[in-house]
Amino acid sequence: MTARGLFLTFEGIDGSGKSTQARLLADVLRAQGCEVLLTREPGGSAGAEEIRRLVLEGDPDRWSAETEILLFTAARRDHMERTILPALAAGQIVICDRFADSTRMYQGLSRGDLRALVDQLHELMIGREPDLTLLIDMDPETGLARAKGRQGSEERFEDFGPDLQKRMRQGFLDLSQEYAGRFRVIDGNRDMGEVAQDVADIVLKAL
Amino acid sequence: MTARGLFLTFEGIDGSGKSTQARLLADVLRAQGCEVLLTREPGGSAGAEEIRRLVLEGDPDRWSAETEILLFTAARRDHMERTILPALAAGQIVICDRFADSTRMYQGLSRGDLRALVDQLHELMIGREPDLTLLIDMDPETGLARAKGRQGSEERFEDFGPDLQKRMRQGFLDLSQEYAGRFRVIDGNRDMGEVAQDVADIVLKAL
Repeated sequence: MTARGLFLTFEGIDGSGKSTQARLLADVLRAQGCEVLLTREPGGSAGAEEIRRLVLEGDPDRWSAETEILLFTAARRDHMERTILPALAAGQIVICDRFADSTRMYQGLSRGDLRALVDQLHELMIGREPDLTLLIDMDPETGLARAKGRQGSEERFEDFGPDLQKRMRQGFLDLSQEYAGRFRVIDGNRDMGEVAQDVADIVLKAL
Repeated sequence: MTARGLFLTFEGIDGSGKSTQARLLADVLRAQGCEVLLTREPGGSAGAEEIRRLVLEGDPDRWSAETEILLFTAARRDHMERTILPALAAGQIVICDRFADSTRMYQGLSRGDLRALVDQLHELMIGREPDLTLLIDMDPETGLARAKGRQGSEERFEDFGPDLQKRMRQGFLDLSQEYAGRFRVIDGNRDMGEVAQDVADIVLKAL
């Protein structure tokens, strides 16, 4: 194992199993002796978690799409400064459940055509992309059923329904073409262990 | 009185008396039969007030300057959408205590040279400038003494001390040159009533 930091992200529609896969990958890498930081967005630092609560709780129309993009970017900036960059500087492997690609999809596509705005804001305030992004591709109906099964107080984004899930799935696949250099697409419509094996193979090769 | 909306802002260092002057101007204009919306930043809408609490309460180093700029811009976007633009569209006179010029000063100058970033973010996410900005110019020592006299739980920005006050005073004067078309500088080192008379004269002429 090398000591250099590596920034990995998991992306996919709600219910794709990416959070589970992120945890399983962290276990595999730790078992190999790697220092791993497992984190998530929105959130991942004390300040970003407070912003997360502000964005995800309450009425879905509480914030305009543009204000929401600003709040997510503020949370991401804090998460980068306080959590991700220090861990990478210390040579750790950072595994992040959702990152800027989710903003490109959920804020950039789902509530109007704001992709250009999301990209400009990312360029201005964040800049950095992950070294490797694992897209867990999943049938939208299955994903939605799974996501609904665990719905809690943060239900805003799952509320948008099956049409959104289909558009988001296609959007993520399009994104994997746009950023082909760092994306790997994994078929998530399989047994959890099989998916985890694919993920581990890809990441261990990248180290 | 015309019915068109007019967007007025008050700016100045802490303790300059701008909040008092904003209230007095609102009274004058209402007495003339104008519909006036008196508001303030950060805050001015339900969402923006929540973001205000997140930014102003707690440890001064809680957020980096960049994250703080993003949070202020999110609050401003909400305030514009929910409060300022609807009032202007209804033909009201909007009086706002602090606006983007305060971000240009306090976030753009006080914590490093971030003015270019503040301006780019404003251009991207807000766009609009006030029609008229009243800068209440004030001796920094006097301003600081006044601000300290009323210090409450939101004391973060007053904590930076007399050097900051001097730099901010000069910064606001520089800004009044940069945006000479919309700025009027008023000597705030006088009796409150004299200052209010100057403010009223300028604004009644602009209507």
